[in-house]
Amino acid sequence: MDPRWRTRTLGVVQARDLAVAYPTVTMDTDALTAARLLTEHNRPGLIVVDERDHPVAVLPGSQVLRVMMPSYVQDDPALARVLDEGFADSICASLAEHTVKELVPKDRPVLPVANPDDTVLEIAAMMAANRSPLVAVLDGKGAGAPLLGAISIYDLLGRILPPAPTS
Amino acid sequence: MDPRWRTRTLGVVQARDLAVAYPTVTMDTDALTAARLLTEHNRPGLIVVDERDHPVAVLPGSQVLRVMMPSYVQDDPALARVLDEGFADSICASLAEHTVKELVPKDRPVLPVANPDDTVLEIAAMMAANRSPLVAVLDGKGAGAPLLGAISIYDLLGRILPPAPTS
Repeated sequence: MDPRWRTRTLGVVQARDLAVAYPTVTMDTDALTAARLLTEHNRPGLIVVDERDHPVAVLPGSQVLRVMMPSYVQDDPALARVLDEGFADSICASLAEHTVKELVPKDRPVLPVANPDDTVLEIAAMMAANRSPLVAVLDGKGAGAPLLGAISIYDLLGRILPPAPTS
Repeated sequence: MDPRWRTRTLGVVQARDLAVAYPTVTMDTDALTAARLLTEHNRPGLIVVDERDHPVAVLPGSQVLRVMMPSYVQDDPALARVLDEGFADSICASLAEHTVKELVPKDRPVLPVANPDDTVLEIAAMMAANRSPLVAVLDGKGAGAPLLGAISIYDLLGRILPPAPTS
């Protein structure tokens, strides 16, 4: 392994260097807007921020479907086979009447939050400890700092792993 | 809303039409290979298949980090700040000594499995019921059928939601 590669990757790179833009909502965002954001950004979830743009939670995309699909269909998905386009229209319309606040699960998954100068291995430890595929990175330190972006586990692993052997 | 759009989307489309290739491992795959697959495919997890290529579990990417990072660092991620490149090399090397079987959590998240002719709303119901951002699609029916591909929640939502209003 080229030692310069390793030094460049882990010795210098900080959370701020790895953070990329991530779609956000607030607790007051309606569920239809949240659903559209998921599809537009090809993400499995959204980051929920407060009025200061500080990250407070993660909204798993499946929560959007839980509010859309009636419980009798969740209990027996085969019942969904007979549902028609009119049904789909009505559940989509109903999304606009719900807010993210209603969707964030009570036993919400923890969204780890990193400071901009945290190291790659610190972020790895946060993901491991919280079983989270995502870490939010703050733009500045201190309580209430706004969101700079987020780091996904696959990007982080790419920084830690040695280069794949070339054959 | 254009009714032709709705009919095309929900009335005809089946799971087989939405399934896309998804990276897989077996229980015997080593953890280093699994980690590389996560980074190469930009996925938060992997599908675990048996010797018949039948999907049996999902491996969240964070499990790879849990086996890499010592528990004392997971308890206090700030301790990772002092870890150096040599440490990173050693934990990466140790990955090759573990298998996926060791990484799949005991309280493993459920991977919903769909038949190829399941409808969009059936898949939505499965995701909602299992709080899963992913559904595996079988290539054929019956126990032990091999994996055709997988459907992500953002692709599925894109099929259910009405087109965004154009301004």
